[in-house]
Amino acid sequence: MNQKRSEENIHKTFKKEIFEFFENEPYAKFLGIKLLELGEGTATAEIEVEAHMLNSHGTAHGAVIFALADFVFAAACNSYGKTSVGLSTTVNFMAAGRASAKLKAVASEEKKNNRTAWYNIRVESEGELIAVMEALAYRKSGYFVPVEEMEKPIPESL
Amino acid sequence: MNQKRSEENIHKTFKKEIFEFFENEPYAKFLGIKLLELGEGTATAEIEVEAHMLNSHGTAHGAVIFALADFVFAAACNSYGKTSVGLSTTVNFMAAGRASAKLKAVASEEKKNNRTAWYNIRVESEGELIAVMEALAYRKSGYFVPVEEMEKPIPESL
Amino acid sequence: MNQKRSEENIHKTFKKEIFEFFENEPYAKFLGIKLLELGEGTATAEIEVEAHMLNSHGTAHGAVIFALADFVFAAACNSYGKTSVGLSTTVNFMAAGRASAKLKAVASEEKKNNRTAWYNIRVESEGELIAVMEALAYRKSGYFVPVEEMEKPIPESL
Amino acid sequence: MNQKRSEENIHKTFKKEIFEFFENEPYAKFLGIKLLELGEGTATAEIEVEAHMLNSHGTAHGAVIFALADFVFAAACNSYGKTSVGLSTTVNFMAAGRASAKLKAVASEEKKNNRTAWYNIRVESEGELIAVMEALAYRKSGYFVPVEEMEKPIPESL
Repeated sequence: MNQKRSEENIHKTFKKEIFEFFENEPYAKFLGIKLLELGEGTATAEIEVEAHMLNSHGTAHGAVIFALADFVFAAACNSYGKTSVGLSTTVNFMAAGRASAKLKAVASEEKKNNRTAWYNIRVESEGELIAVMEALAYRKSGYFVPVEEMEKPIPESL
Repeated sequence: MNQKRSEENIHKTFKKEIFEFFENEPYAKFLGIKLLELGEGTATAEIEVEAHMLNSHGTAHGAVIFALADFVFAAACNSYGKTSVGLSTTVNFMAAGRASAKLKAVASEEKKNNRTAWYNIRVESEGELIAVMEALAYRKSGYFVPVEEMEKPIPESL
Repeated sequence: MNQKRSEENIHKTFKKEIFEFFENEPYAKFLGIKLLELGEGTATAEIEVEAHMLNSHGTAHGAVIFALADFVFAAACNSYGKTSVGLSTTVNFMAAGRASAKLKAVASEEKKNNRTAWYNIRVESEGELIAVMEALAYRKSGYFVPVEEMEKPIPESL
Repeated sequence: MNQKRSEENIHKTFKKEIFEFFENEPYAKFLGIKLLELGEGTATAEIEVEAHMLNSHGTAHGAVIFALADFVFAAACNSYGKTSVGLSTTVNFMAAGRASAKLKAVASEEKKNNRTAWYNIRVESEGELIAVMEALAYRKSGYFVPVEEMEKPIPESL
């Protein structure tokens, strides 16, 4: 069994814990965001635009679109068990999200360095692209999953 | 009495209506955002970070910080009664917002053209700058306040 | 022959003129940027990082990377012959571009509305992704190619 | 004499070297950018829009405006002698820069942490605000000025 503490193996070993970590995120639960998929540097989630999520013009509040995009960004950049936080996010709003519509967001990883990683997030509603987020994460040195439980790699010389 | 339909006069005439328009915004009410001040191209609001507004790492969710920043941005760019929507927003996160802390955001106008306007938003918590948003609004041709009620300017020749 | 003045047909009819329009852009020529490909909402270009394009730390100046990214953005959003200008651009720098390296940028269209359009631009050097730009264009009402030369569509009833 | 190696003192001690470091930046020299002022986390510079700096529409190329903004950003975040690089920059273009016009950019520091720092840059032309940049810098651990020449602080107990 490969126990090497690579990012890939940490993700595989703790995928269930990381998934639950984000499923139980207080603000996402409060809004009713559902995490659908979690992979290495990727995440997909959706939300239904309810009446209390509208702006005064009667469409989905930009901050709800952001919340969904930010959620998959956070799940994707934390998918390796390494505590990561958002440094900078740019959102371009392309179309309004309608009341009662379902919004879906997908985050994909553009690049991952030691301390920094970049993600592109697309938000769609009823097949139409309504927003794109470009996001930069800072990767801290600690882990929020018990990586110390993983055996250290067996030295090759044995 | 100056009844000229300038942006300045529309703001003055309908300031109360515009203030209430944003006070009653569904999502802002749902989150408990309080609009404190509204001026020409400016707005100030605050929110208290409650338990359901946290992320999994235990600090204020970035999407809550965004919601507050976006709210003052929307109030500021709609302060002339002209329907305006967010086109692009960039948020840089500088420090974590703590649980139970009060966050305050101030939007100020950088420039206003016919169709586009730009705003700088600063979010502070307990005296510390925790996020800055740079935002671009698209100004539609319609108004969400009854500008037709305003008398047309009396011709100077009379 | 389909002479309908669609964006697609304007692009096809004036592709050569639009290509030359950007090949001859003063600043791009000055820097030595080469336009390699132009399509509907897409463009590819490259530049060689010369000694005068470095920053004080000895790597490709961020403004040179930006110039290349901005060039393919401009070519892509102007590829329909409609005069378009950049409203907002966000660039994330992921790795340094080395002296003497060749940089290549590709712009692709995310969405196009009547007045606004969005593009994602990737800049690579020696196979490594070194920067990503997310860009928003404003589409003016005029054209910089002689669309009036195109015949109006023949009415279907004839 | 206060020889404490604070960021403030490093700036004061090596201000002349840092100023020259940026005055001699290859790309800035190539473009004719002039550094006017350098302070702690601040910088001012200007450029004259020459014929080779135009875009195909006949106005100042966005990449020239960016180059000036990026230059004062770099000077400001490197003003403490600590090697700093740009991670993310967002530029909103508000008005065209005219041919032969002089552009002036001012960078001011919004916040500075150990590893990250944020700057707001305003670019004006003939008194009009034409662009705003919001920029994030990553601060490396090394210095590009000889801080080891500075005496260590005399222990208080002496």
